[in-house]
Amino acid sequence: MRAVLFGDSGLSMIKKPIPKINQREVLVKVKMVGICNTDIELIKGYYGFKGVAGHEFVGIIEQSPQKPEIIGKRIVGDINRGCGACVWCMRGDGRHCPARQIVGIAGWDGAFAEYMKLPLINVRIVDDNIPDECAVFSEPLAAALEISQQIHITNNQRVIVLGDGKLGLLIALGLRHFNHRLILVGKHKEKLRIAAEHNIGTICIGAPYDFENIARKEGLFDIVIEATGKAEGINDALKIVRPEGIIVAKTTSRDFSKIDMAKAVVDEISIIGSRCGDIDLALSFLRNKLVDPMPLIDSIYPFEKFSEAFERAVTPGAKKVLVRF
Amino acid sequence: MRAVLFGDSGLSMIKKPIPKINQREVLVKVKMVGICNTDIELIKGYYGFKGVAGHEFVGIIEQSPQKPEIIGKRIVGDINRGCGACVWCMRGDGRHCPARQIVGIAGWDGAFAEYMKLPLINVRIVDDNIPDECAVFSEPLAAALEISQQIHITNNQRVIVLGDGKLGLLIALGLRHFNHRLILVGKHKEKLRIAAEHNIGTICIGAPYDFENIARKEGLFDIVIEATGKAEGINDALKIVRPEGIIVAKTTSRDFSKIDMAKAVVDEISIIGSRCGDIDLALSFLRNKLVDPMPLIDSIYPFEKFSEAFERAVTPGAKKVLVRF
Repeated sequence: MRAVLFGDSGLSMIKKPIPKINQREVLVKVKMVGICNTDIELIKGYYGFKGVAGHEFVGIIEQSPQKPEIIGKRIVGDINRGCGACVWCMRGDGRHCPARQIVGIAGWDGAFAEYMKLPLINVRIVDDNIPDECAVFSEPLAAALEISQQIHITNNQRVIVLGDGKLGLLIALGLRHFNHRLILVGKHKEKLRIAAEHNIGTICIGAPYDFENIARKEGLFDIVIEATGKAEGINDALKIVRPEGIIVAKTTSRDFSKIDMAKAVVDEISIIGSRCGDIDLALSFLRNKLVDPMPLIDSIYPFEKFSEAFERAVTPGAKKVLVRF
Repeated sequence: MRAVLFGDSGLSMIKKPIPKINQREVLVKVKMVGICNTDIELIKGYYGFKGVAGHEFVGIIEQSPQKPEIIGKRIVGDINRGCGACVWCMRGDGRHCPARQIVGIAGWDGAFAEYMKLPLINVRIVDDNIPDECAVFSEPLAAALEISQQIHITNNQRVIVLGDGKLGLLIALGLRHFNHRLILVGKHKEKLRIAAEHNIGTICIGAPYDFENIARKEGLFDIVIEATGKAEGINDALKIVRPEGIIVAKTTSRDFSKIDMAKAVVDEISIIGSRCGDIDLALSFLRNKLVDPMPLIDSIYPFEKFSEAFERAVTPGAKKVLVRF
């Protein structure tokens, strides 16, 4: 099969054998895959990754020895593969298993290939009413909705999302169902327009960002969701969060963040890290059309043109780049 | 009256008029005052403070126009003076009032003087069974116990306190009533001995601190309380907190902290700032002998020797230095 290898010399399209599966795994023929900022970080050397990346995917089950009735089904997958035996895995949540592998990120080849294997328990069948172009967003949408599973968001709170990148937009589109007054802050007019078309309040800021100005005009916020992708985004959040308020941190930066912790201590702010989420919740949102990711698609490339797709994905301001097999 | 002035040229003993009070204030004759690390930071220029510091005090009411029946009573005080009209103050909590003054810290002269004034609503009468030497700890003990008011600490959690300074010790002595397995980590054998005498588990670490080693030997913790006084103490806490665990941040450093936020995001850690607390709760703990601060006293100086007392307080490893009037 053909696969895209992330290695010392960057990206290369290689031939490699179709993965062999065991009794507890399935073989998936990949149909569509998304390119995530994490993939861009991986190729920059984040996590010391070498191998086949790709963790936002839709595919068709080709082999499933333990459950042959799902052969031919269209699926997405939970990307965390826990050890199956620790206290986290016993709760059915491998996201924090200390021995976990992560599909396309750590220790498990991903979906930038014609075929991939997946643990059977990670498989989620996709409803027919969700097109591939939407199903491929289930992993990042799960990460966006994870915030709603960590903190109790109510409709009368003041909630603001910082960053109109792919994740920030998905967060705004998802969390607006929990809070109708939610505001998205960004610097890309076209992306903010997508939010505005969904009745989300938007603030377009120039460089340098002026968060003191937001606090002056809009007051302080109960919940500030930091999805700027910048290591120092937390300090912007600290400028507009109320005392005893919550900052949700979504940015994973390779650099340490220089944070005004004295401000967080004096104002008794909670800074809550937030990562992967519940793929079933994301599928439920897609099935019920609560989030329409279509406007977030930048372009769709054929697998043959993966390197062009990747080049487009790293272009500043690009929306979600998809690859079709 | 005599007062200690913090100014451009450091400390100086000056003469100034006894404060004049209004109808909503009381005049307090100071009996005893503690020197806090915040006072040491104030004289270094933290908060741009100039004036009379001192926010850990016991005194006697000399004037009280609105409530003359408390004249002669021994009191301590809440140090936050809110505007009285904002949403925080309406809840009876001036700690986060945006227009607040803080006794001996910001905009209100403190207790390093023979007399001080205090808003009547900040006054707390001290039970006769609490000696001055204990009552003077009510403010820092309130700050220590504040943690128990922010997060739910149960007896079956694994809780660890980093830092055996004055605040770290008070936190350990106070929170051991919520969690009998609590561990205190520090580098001062004598201070750890005080904790050990109260059946608190202790770990003495050398320089460089080895927190990987603690994680290896003791496992990970549900709650890590960071009271090291170091800007980067949060990163030590991140090494020993479990996924989805809580770090309580107590250190207010003038420097920004360089924090491994990616670790906090991936492990979905909550970092919760924690500041002043409920002075009534502290008095209840002192009244019921739940915390005995006596072993934390380093030395007691007469007010005439304030500069000697201050010199002792800044000595590395010194315990609480008190000043008697």
